[in-house]
Order: sequence, then C-alpha cells, then structure tokens
Amino acid sequence: MASDRTRSIDLNADVGESFGPWPMGADAELIPLVSRVNVACGAHAGDPVTILRTVELAVRHGAAIGAHPGYPDLAGFGRRDLDLSPDELRATLVVQIGAVQAAATVAGTHVVHVKPHGAMYNRAARDAAMAATIAAAVRDVDSALVLVGLAGSESIAAAREIGLAAAEEAFADRRYEPDGSLRSRRLDGALLSPGEAAAQAVSIARDGCVIASDGSRLAVHADTLCIHGDSPGAVDIARAVRAAVEAAGIQVARRNAG
Amino acid sequence: MASDRTRSIDLNADVGESFGPWPMGADAELIPLVSRVNVACGAHAGDPVTILRTVELAVRHGAAIGAHPGYPDLAGFGRRDLDLSPDELRATLVVQIGAVQAAATVAGTHVVHVKPHGAMYNRAARDAAMAATIAAAVRDVDSALVLVGLAGSESIAAAREIGLAAAEEAFADRRYEPDGSLRSRRLDGALLSPGEAAAQAVSIARDGCVIASDGSRLAVHADTLCIHGDSPGAVDIARAVRAAVEAAGIQVARRNAG
Amino acid sequence: MASDRTRSIDLNADVGESFGPWPMGADAELIPLVSRVNVACGAHAGDPVTILRTVELAVRHGAAIGAHPGYPDLAGFGRRDLDLSPDELRATLVVQIGAVQAAATVAGTHVVHVKPHGAMYNRAARDAAMAATIAAAVRDVDSALVLVGLAGSESIAAAREIGLAAAEEAFADRRYEPDGSLRSRRLDGALLSPGEAAAQAVSIARDGCVIASDGSRLAVHADTLCIHGDSPGAVDIARAVRAAVEAAGIQVARRNAG
Amino acid sequence: MASDRTRSIDLNADVGESFGPWPMGADAELIPLVSRVNVACGAHAGDPVTILRTVELAVRHGAAIGAHPGYPDLAGFGRRDLDLSPDELRATLVVQIGAVQAAATVAGTHVVHVKPHGAMYNRAARDAAMAATIAAAVRDVDSALVLVGLAGSESIAAAREIGLAAAEEAFADRRYEPDGSLRSRRLDGALLSPGEAAAQAVSIARDGCVIASDGSRLAVHADTLCIHGDSPGAVDIARAVRAAVEAAGIQVARRNAG
Repeated sequence: MASDRTRSIDLNADVGESFGPWPMGADAELIPLVSRVNVACGAHAGDPVTILRTVELAVRHGAAIGAHPGYPDLAGFGRRDLDLSPDELRATLVVQIGAVQAAATVAGTHVVHVKPHGAMYNRAARDAAMAATIAAAVRDVDSALVLVGLAGSESIAAAREIGLAAAEEAFADRRYEPDGSLRSRRLDGALLSPGEAAAQAVSIARDGCVIASDGSRLAVHADTLCIHGDSPGAVDIARAVRAAVEAAGIQVARRNAG
Repeated sequence: MASDRTRSIDLNADVGESFGPWPMGADAELIPLVSRVNVACGAHAGDPVTILRTVELAVRHGAAIGAHPGYPDLAGFGRRDLDLSPDELRATLVVQIGAVQAAATVAGTHVVHVKPHGAMYNRAARDAAMAATIAAAVRDVDSALVLVGLAGSESIAAAREIGLAAAEEAFADRRYEPDGSLRSRRLDGALLSPGEAAAQAVSIARDGCVIASDGSRLAVHADTLCIHGDSPGAVDIARAVRAAVEAAGIQVARRNAG
Repeated sequence: MASDRTRSIDLNADVGESFGPWPMGADAELIPLVSRVNVACGAHAGDPVTILRTVELAVRHGAAIGAHPGYPDLAGFGRRDLDLSPDELRATLVVQIGAVQAAATVAGTHVVHVKPHGAMYNRAARDAAMAATIAAAVRDVDSALVLVGLAGSESIAAAREIGLAAAEEAFADRRYEPDGSLRSRRLDGALLSPGEAAAQAVSIARDGCVIASDGSRLAVHADTLCIHGDSPGAVDIARAVRAAVEAAGIQVARRNAG
Repeated sequence: MASDRTRSIDLNADVGESFGPWPMGADAELIPLVSRVNVACGAHAGDPVTILRTVELAVRHGAAIGAHPGYPDLAGFGRRDLDLSPDELRATLVVQIGAVQAAATVAGTHVVHVKPHGAMYNRAARDAAMAATIAAAVRDVDSALVLVGLAGSESIAAAREIGLAAAEEAFADRRYEPDGSLRSRRLDGALLSPGEAAAQAVSIARDGCVIASDGSRLAVHADTLCIHGDSPGAVDIARAVRAAVEAAGIQVARRNAG
C-alpha cells in the first residue's frame, strides 16, 4: 500500500568527479550517507584511477553504483551544450557506461543504473528524440539497468516507452519553481541550506510535495532524491537530510528498481 | 599431433584507429582478411563512434574481437613512453577494456582478448613488473580473456604466472633481427613487402622459423600473426599472407584460446 | 579605379588540420597554389608540430599566414556547436591565436589574419553578439589583424564596428543558394567540380556574381576566395581555379588588407 | 657590490593551475606576495579562461609574468615522464609560450620569463640535450626571455651557452639533500613548515646557503626563490617567507634579468 512505499527513500549523489590532480567533492564522507552513487565516467569528469577508487568506496559502503555519463568536455564539465549527433550520443554513452561497468566488475559488483549529467541530463529532460537515443543506448548495454532522470520528464517517458526501468529524480537541495522546474542557480534562493534541504526531503518523501519559490505547494514524485556532490556543503546537506528523514520514520535505502 | 596444430594460423590486425574526422587504416577491407581484430579503445586512438562501428564490422565478418588499449596520448598515438604508476596503468586498462566490452555487448558479442598497443606493448615485453600489472588487470576484468603479447616475452610469462591464457604473437610484415627482436623501423629492410610477408607467414606457420636480417634461421613460435593495420600496404600484405598460407594448406582461423 | 581592383584575387585555404599520427589535406601541394593560409590552432585540429611545420611551409611559399581557431573539440573537428560563454570564447580565441603567433615568430614572420573555423564561423556569421566577442578578442590580441568572415555577415559588421579590418570571404568550391547561403553538404550539387569551381571563381573575381542553385544570378562580393583544404579534390580545385583566374587576366595575390 | 646584490630577492610561484571546474592553489592570495609568477599554459594545467584571469591578476599586483609550460598530460599534471622527440618538445614549448604571450598582450603586458614544469623541469635539469632544445625554443620565440631553471643545472648551462639569460632557482619550501638535490616528497621532512621555509629563504638570500637534511651546510645560489603554489600551505609559507626576508632587510622584488 501507498504508505508502505513512503517508508523508505533512495538518496543519490554524483561522485567520482575529481580529475587527475584536481579533487572535487567529498566522496569519502558523502558516500556513506547515501544509498546510490552516480560515478563520473571520464568524459565530463573522472579519470580511470578515480573511477576505480570511487567504485571501491561505494562497494565498501553498500551504495548502489550507477554510471554518470556526460558530454565529452572536461573543461566545460559537461555543462555546456554540445551538439552531438544521435550516433555520437549513443556511442559516447556506450563506452562511458562500459568504463564504469569494468571498474565495477573489478570491484566485485556491477552497475545498476545510469544517470546522465549536466547539460545532457537537462536537454534530455525536454527533448524526446534525445531521450529516446539515451534510453535505447542504456538498454542495449544492459536491459536490466535503471535510467535515472528528472521526475516527469521526457527521459522517464522514453525509458518506459521501450520497457526500460526508470527512476524519477527530485532534488533535496534545490528550490523548485511553481512550474516544477529547478530555480536557476543564478537567482537568489536557488540553493537550499542544509535545514531547508532536510525539510524539503521529508516533504517529498512523506507527502510527495514541495513548497515552490512563490510559496505554493507543488506535487513532486520521487523514486530517488539527489544530493549534489559538488556543492560546497554537500556533506552537511546529506547529513541533515538523512537525519531528518530518519527522524520522520523513513529509511534511507535503495529502491528495488535498481 | 604437432602437424595438426600448424594446419591453421590465427591472423590479427590492429583496427579502429581512426579518430573523429581523421581516418586511419582500411578496416573495411582488412577485417574480412583476418581472424582476430584488436580494437583501439579511445586512449591512443579510436573515438566512441569508431569503436562501435569497428566492433560491428568485426561481428559481420566473424573476426574475434579484442581490446587494444594504449597509453592515453592521442597526439603521440601511444608510441611515446609515458611513465604511468602501476595504479594508473591498471586503471586505464580497466576502463579501456570496459569501453570495448560495452560496444561488443551492444553488437551482440563479447571481447575475447586484450593486446596492448605501441609503447605499452613494447615496454611490457621486457618489464616484468609492468607485465604483471597488465596481466592482473586483464584477469580482474574477465578471467576468460586471452592476453596477446610478444612471443617469448615477459608479457606472456606474466599472464601464465597468474593462470591467464596468453597468445604469443609474431609478425608477418616486419623483419626480425638474429636476437629475435623486430628490426627498427628506422633501418633499411625493416618493413617487408607483401611477397616477403607472405613467405615469412608461411615459414612461421608451417616451420616455426623466420630468416633474420643477417640471413640466419631463427625459431619463432606464434599463436597469432600480426598484420599492422596502419601500414600503407596493410591490405595488400594481408591478402598476400592469406593467399600464401592457404596455398600451403594452412587455414586462417582463430585459435581456440580466445 | 574599380577595374584595377579586380585584377587580383586572394585565394585562401584551411591548412594544418592534421593531428598527431593522422594526416589531413595535402598542404604541401595546396599551399603553393594559394596566397593566404588559415592555420588550425590545436583546438579543433592541429598539434604543435603540425602548427610549426605548416607555418614554415607557408613562409617558404610566400603565403600570408592566419590563425584558424575553432571550438575546442577534436573529436568533432569543431563542427559541432559548443555553447561557450563569451568569456570562454574570448579566452580560447586569444590562446589559439597566440599559439600560431609564436609559431610564426619562430619561422621569422607574423600572423596577419584570423578566420574562425566550422561551427564557430557559421554561428558568428548570424549571431551579432558572438561576432562582437570574436572581433574584440582579435583586436585585443593585435589590432592590425584582419578578420576573415562570411561576406555580408555579422562577422564582418562586428569587425568594422570596432575598427578592425575585415575581409569578406566567398567560396569557389561550394554551390550558393539564391539567398546567398551555401548549399548544404547534404544536398546534391553542394560541392563543385574543379571545372565548376574555376568558373565560379572567375565569375566572382571578375563580375562579382555567381550562378545560384536555381540558375539565378547572385551578387557576391569577395575580398578572398576559400578553397576547402579538407576536400578530397582540394588540390585539383585549387589548380583549376588558379589556372582559370590567371587565364582571365586576374592575378592570385594577397590583398593589401592583411 | 656583492652585498647590494643580496639586498633584494625575487620570489616566484607557480600559478594558473586550475582547470575548468577544478580550482587549484590560492592565486588571489599568493600573487600579491611574490614578485614573479609562472602561468600554466594549458598543457599540464590551465585552461584559456584561467590563463587570462591569472595574467590579469598578475598585472594588477605588479608581478612579472612567465610562461610555465609542461608536458601535454592533464591527467598526470605534467609530472609523469613523457618521451617527446626534440621536435615535439620544441613545438609544444612554442605554442604554450605563445598562448601566455597572447594573454599577456591582451592584459597590456608581456611575458618576461619561461620556467618549465614538473617532469620536464626535472629532466631538463640533468639532460643536456633536452636542456638545449628547451633553451633554443625559448630563444626562438623571444630572445629577451629569461629561462628559469634549477640552480647549477644543465638548464642554466644550456641557456647561457646560446646567450639566453637564465635565472637560477632555489626552493624555500623544500629540504635539500647534501648533494644539492631536493629531498624526495616521499621522504619525511621533505616539505618545510612556514617557519622553516622562512628561515631557509633568509639563509639563501643573505648567506647563499642552506642547512641540508643531514645538518650540513650547503652553498645555494639563487636568482629567484620558488614557493610551490600547489602546496596546501602555500599562502602561509609565502607570508612567512616574505615577512622574514623583509625583517632581515631584504626587499622582495623582481631581478633585472627578467
């Protein structure tokens, strides 16, 4: 029954986004706090050593492991639109997922989900053709993978259309606009404090809604909640979110799907 | 019995070494002529689209598919020594092999061997510690993989030491020195003509020997014979080799191992 | 007087687009046939050795040297749109031009013009804000540089707006549409044969017009005519164009501007 | 007279070593404390936006600007040996220096010195042929440039051999071995505390000597003292060094050469 379903919440974080000599994020502290991690694949971030270490860290802490492919644009961190053809998009997804799969194999586990990154994630959410290319590529690599995408977006629809499991993602640490989009990082109040993020996480997990930027109540369904690993306060946010949802009687645990 | 064993010979070629707008090699003509291909993994050559297309081409022609990892140095084509730490070497191998594995999965097949490229291949042949790192990485990704290395080298010894299948490689299109090394490309007579390569291939496959640069007879054992895909006359050489070995009653076919 | 002005025509070609082990174009044959070369700067194509060799080749044949900056996207050859911020666009232009300037200095000469490449060229032609960013970056590196852009485009207007010399470019080897745009490479008849290119070059140089794809007569002003270096028949086209314009009494020579 | 010469000391720091989304170092705090900065050129670190910003920061604080070229190996941060041919080494130096020169031009200044980075710096210090290639490349770009190299090394000798000004570098923040080499970072006591670095800086600047790891006194001549920008305590070290040398009556100022 529905109330059972809300007794647990899946928390995910983007990790493995260091590159060579440049660290990013606080993976060692963040990974123990979440149930699922999205591992950068070397295209927008992540180098081979980082990929292996991150997967091993996730195994140690029991987090479900996913691939986090992005545009091949290190300098832009995959946040700049890059106009890939469908063939190019499909191919880069396949090899990026494969890189993390092999690292997972070496660490004695396997990849259970895929979550695109940055500009690729955002564009797929509203571009049905691109979403279909992504869903097909993921299915063709492993039809048991779960595609994580923006709740209610084209990404989710495209996955379901071809029988691929999809997980709808909402955001604990970002303010929503009344139309369901995320408030731009350029605007005041876009980023939530740990306390606000914790409250929003409980609200989504228990009640299926958030308070949007204009004060209105917005329905938000989430199979998984994202903590941005590259935020300065990512660890504080994850701690606050985890404590708050547990205090509300909700367990942090990976969902069956994925 | 021994004579049976020489009734077939495995021919391999390095393929998928185009990058973005820059073609290299004549894969479409070369792949039908060999029994095994080594697919560049995107580090020294090969981009995601090329990896997928190359794997599909190999499937179409029934060639066994291997990963051909190299140093992450596109501009140097993996031919310049790069002083990777053991952890860096292991990690780059894992993700490079994973990239081709995922492409093979998408094409309905799987990777059966790994052959390092260029400076990595050459250094591993004489550096036991490096060879051990490579063999362990390959085994940890998939213990059923076959490691292809220079016949009689440290690469082969390291694989066998840990129970990984190894295939000893000899070269149809390169002159050997009396000590068993390949004659440097900088010296006259290093590269064989199609006719010379064909004769050398038959000599290796049937008699287990070559005529070295000083005219002496040199024992060369080969589980697989390499045709360099990036040679200008690669296709002519492959045609000549194939015709000559078949005329000698030897079948071109992938060996059981791998 | 006007008739004097048409007694010479500037021919330019994109060169230096090899990368590492991958050759592109036939620079050694093409450069002697043109009066101006655009040297790839290492971002969409070109590696440091290629940049130096190309500049030296241009010096030997007396061709004017320009920088040919593009999006930092080797795998996509700068032909995929990449959404750079104005700061990112400005910065990549500065360092790309600087790379060719230093190579020119080493070769005893200097860079006289800048011509953006591929998707950057095309987008700047119609995007006034982007064109202004490009023009300002070029001027700030060296106010004596000439910006080469599509004839009649925003690129030209932006340069003139800030007092930067501009050279309007037309194309000898591509069919024009009646609206003055280039016929898409995906459509039949987009690429001209050497004979057609030669006729079009004479028509532009002598009469200031071309015959468009629908047979209509289109006015085309050109300060410089482009021969695409990466076309398979680039050298044949350049030879035919050069012979035809010289037969028509028009000298191939760099214009004063630049 | 000699005592006058030691009334000032040149302090340099490696800066601009961020890349894309990944910050490194504390350039904004460090640059005001030194008299000379070495700006990463985009090969081992540094992206175009970082190069421009770093040069502008140096201009604002009156620091002399140098190029800090390294091996083209971002993931390895230029600290892994890469076996470039002399042509490749020369070419990468030329284009890397050119990138910073253009950025300096845009910022209204110019590059006055070149200091190789990491594995390139270390290898050139003991490899005379490589040092000669570097010195020639620097001179050919601009014969007024100063080459900064390890005090007493082949780098210095090679520059002087061809009439290029050279600045001998010593290290404030690293322990010396009795033979004049730097103690390996892998050994205890290799990195000095701010207080130790300050004392060593004064000792070098005033007395031309350091206390080596075995307690012996070692003569060290320095035209410039390096503060490693990527050390965690770089800013603290720079502050301590500056305060100590000024307290000893020595001014921090760029030397005439460069």
